[in-house]
Amino acid sequence: MDMKTKSVLDDLRINGDRLWASLMELAQIGATEKGGVCRLTLTDLDRQGRDLVLKWAREAGMTVVIDKIGNGFMRRAGRNNALPPIMTGSHIDTQPTGGKFDSNYGVLAGIEVVRTLNDHNIETEAPIEVAFWTNEEGSRFVPVMMGSGVFAKAFTLEHAYAARDTEGKSVKEELERIDYLGPEEPGAHPIGAYFETHIEQGPVLEDNDITIGVVTGVLGIKWYDCTVTGMEAHAGPTPMALRKDALQVAAKLMQEVVAIALRYAPHGRGTVGMVQVHPNSRNVIPGRVKFSIDLRNASDELVDKMDVDIRAAVAKASEQSGLPITIEVVSNYPAQPFHTDCIQVVARAAEKLGYSNMPAVSGAGHDAVYMARLAPAGMIFIPCKDGISHNEIEDAKPEHITAGCNVLLHAMLERAGTV
Amino acid sequence: MDMKTKSVLDDLRINGDRLWASLMELAQIGATEKGGVCRLTLTDLDRQGRDLVLKWAREAGMTVVIDKIGNGFMRRAGRNNALPPIMTGSHIDTQPTGGKFDSNYGVLAGIEVVRTLNDHNIETEAPIEVAFWTNEEGSRFVPVMMGSGVFAKAFTLEHAYAARDTEGKSVKEELERIDYLGPEEPGAHPIGAYFETHIEQGPVLEDNDITIGVVTGVLGIKWYDCTVTGMEAHAGPTPMALRKDALQVAAKLMQEVVAIALRYAPHGRGTVGMVQVHPNSRNVIPGRVKFSIDLRNASDELVDKMDVDIRAAVAKASEQSGLPITIEVVSNYPAQPFHTDCIQVVARAAEKLGYSNMPAVSGAGHDAVYMARLAPAGMIFIPCKDGISHNEIEDAKPEHITAGCNVLLHAMLERAGTV
Repeated sequence: MDMKTKSVLDDLRINGDRLWASLMELAQIGATEKGGVCRLTLTDLDRQGRDLVLKWAREAGMTVVIDKIGNGFMRRAGRNNALPPIMTGSHIDTQPTGGKFDSNYGVLAGIEVVRTLNDHNIETEAPIEVAFWTNEEGSRFVPVMMGSGVFAKAFTLEHAYAARDTEGKSVKEELERIDYLGPEEPGAHPIGAYFETHIEQGPVLEDNDITIGVVTGVLGIKWYDCTVTGMEAHAGPTPMALRKDALQVAAKLMQEVVAIALRYAPHGRGTVGMVQVHPNSRNVIPGRVKFSIDLRNASDELVDKMDVDIRAAVAKASEQSGLPITIEVVSNYPAQPFHTDCIQVVARAAEKLGYSNMPAVSGAGHDAVYMARLAPAGMIFIPCKDGISHNEIEDAKPEHITAGCNVLLHAMLERAGTV
Repeated sequence: MDMKTKSVLDDLRINGDRLWASLMELAQIGATEKGGVCRLTLTDLDRQGRDLVLKWAREAGMTVVIDKIGNGFMRRAGRNNALPPIMTGSHIDTQPTGGKFDSNYGVLAGIEVVRTLNDHNIETEAPIEVAFWTNEEGSRFVPVMMGSGVFAKAFTLEHAYAARDTEGKSVKEELERIDYLGPEEPGAHPIGAYFETHIEQGPVLEDNDITIGVVTGVLGIKWYDCTVTGMEAHAGPTPMALRKDALQVAAKLMQEVVAIALRYAPHGRGTVGMVQVHPNSRNVIPGRVKFSIDLRNASDELVDKMDVDIRAAVAKASEQSGLPITIEVVSNYPAQPFHTDCIQVVARAAEKLGYSNMPAVSGAGHDAVYMARLAPAGMIFIPCKDGISHNEIEDAKPEHITAGCNVLLHAMLERAGTV
């Protein structure tokens, strides 16, 4: 590489206006009145979205492969196509009341990287691939992160095919119906490295006025159902001393969930999001309260310590109140640290480009979690307004959209190698 | 009165087996598989129940009047029929999953008193009346205690007529349909005194192994809706320090409700029975929590003190958390002390009969609350199993059923006067 080429590469920037325009165009498919997007996976709208993205990919000279779970791979050849591709990707399905960015951004940033390379006739050593993964959101079909999960063999294709929506339609039927049940065996091709750009979906970057989050990993998660059993009784005739009020015991434990999260700072998270009170009547002392517990932390070891603490709190509350309390794990996602090389590549790119940046953890799952099982992986976060996502008012600034894509461009170039 | 007559009166006892048999026969109408009764007000089953009770009343020589809200008055003439009647009564409508005793007992105890007087050819000075009140339970139509409320002019007949069930049927239509819209103006006839026997619906008598509760009054009640508004956010990406978790603030206030009740012992009651969490999703920090508060105490003054305390707690929680919290009164039932004379008559009767007894307060509303606005009133409680009512497993012992009715007999005889 001569000095001129190096300078050209260092000065390379994506076209932020073009990326923004593509984001806005894709957001028209399933656009809601409040400015959001409702494009549930494997619906007719999802097909329209997929078709548009693939049209753009083909216009950018990319070849397209669809696999048996409907994941799409758009490939720009490299100089040495025997090398595994450097991949970026995300998903284009949305929540029922979703926004324009989660995560059309992750897919269209990849397309923009390729368009930029085309603009400047830059050839990479390894091929570049852009992927969209089927059903990341999990709002129509369970499990979430379905396409990347099948690709990484976290669960089987048959398991995913059998999932049904509330109307009884299966994933397989819907893939066939929208013509996205492709020929490739999921996971059949190797990956050299994987990067994913995403809005943060949290308030940390905005709160710190930082442009780029260099994601070091994804928090481990344990989900529990906790049930306190008391005795229903009339609110009037039952004196305080003779009550077995399930809600009062549950309320103490709800606060304990937060206390445990604070004990394991800075990445400890504790949330009670769902509460069911039985019989839930104004003048009846609750006889049974079921509530969810969501514990997260940056390593499995820390999550395990939080697990010990919540079980101890439950045992103590049961002993003190005399009421039976059950706690059971309903889901368990191990923590996923990203690869040091990828973290450093992202950090270097942000620095080189002059963007303020900080290490970040992802509290939510992403397709990159499954990709990290197969190849070195990393993520790039940008701020979103008020940390809000999964909401029609989800918003992000064009300058941040551009910055994240520039970081992706330079990170992918470093990993793919240029001639 | 000569000595023989006095001795006959002192030795007078109701026929417990007959009363029990009538209770069991009435409980067949709307009997549920689990041993309870589902006989909602103004249904075909309610008509069957009303018809049976009136048949028994006529067989006992009583005259029958129905008023415009469907209240039934069954009258046994006295020697001086210009005197206002000594009345007892209750309701025969039940909760959807109600029991056999709440409060068929209160009505059939009155019939049994009359049967006993007939058996012994005892004439009272004032007439005796037994009433059943329409829609005490309020589970089909709101407001509760509808028939006695109209009778006592707590609200208008038109207001009651207009109430509709979930199928859109009105009280007036249903009264006409089951042929219980009578000719008498509600509240048209005066009452000399009113007694009501009832299962306690609480655990105090059983806990103290006491047969008769001499009810001194009914607790005042304030019902509130309290709403904490936070900010919905993802449970994963939102660090603890940046959360506005409405549930955590609500959980503290829920415990405050109990603390306030304990502060105003012995009759203070504080209950959170109903909780609505929004959006109630496992991995979303609650953005809004609405919950009910039920505060009760033996006097309006004490309820007012509790009101001051809960409002102070809400203000403090809002200040500490920075989250807006609203609290609004949705219902307010003043405390209703019973008349000293009636309390003493009941206590004397229990003593004379040799039943263990204690002062009791009623935590729940009863038709007697409205009657106390019109005439000296009192209530007689008997224990029920585990304090449970409004439940198909509601149960009471025959010996207690008999005892409560004997107390009613002697209390009514004292008030009505014998020749």
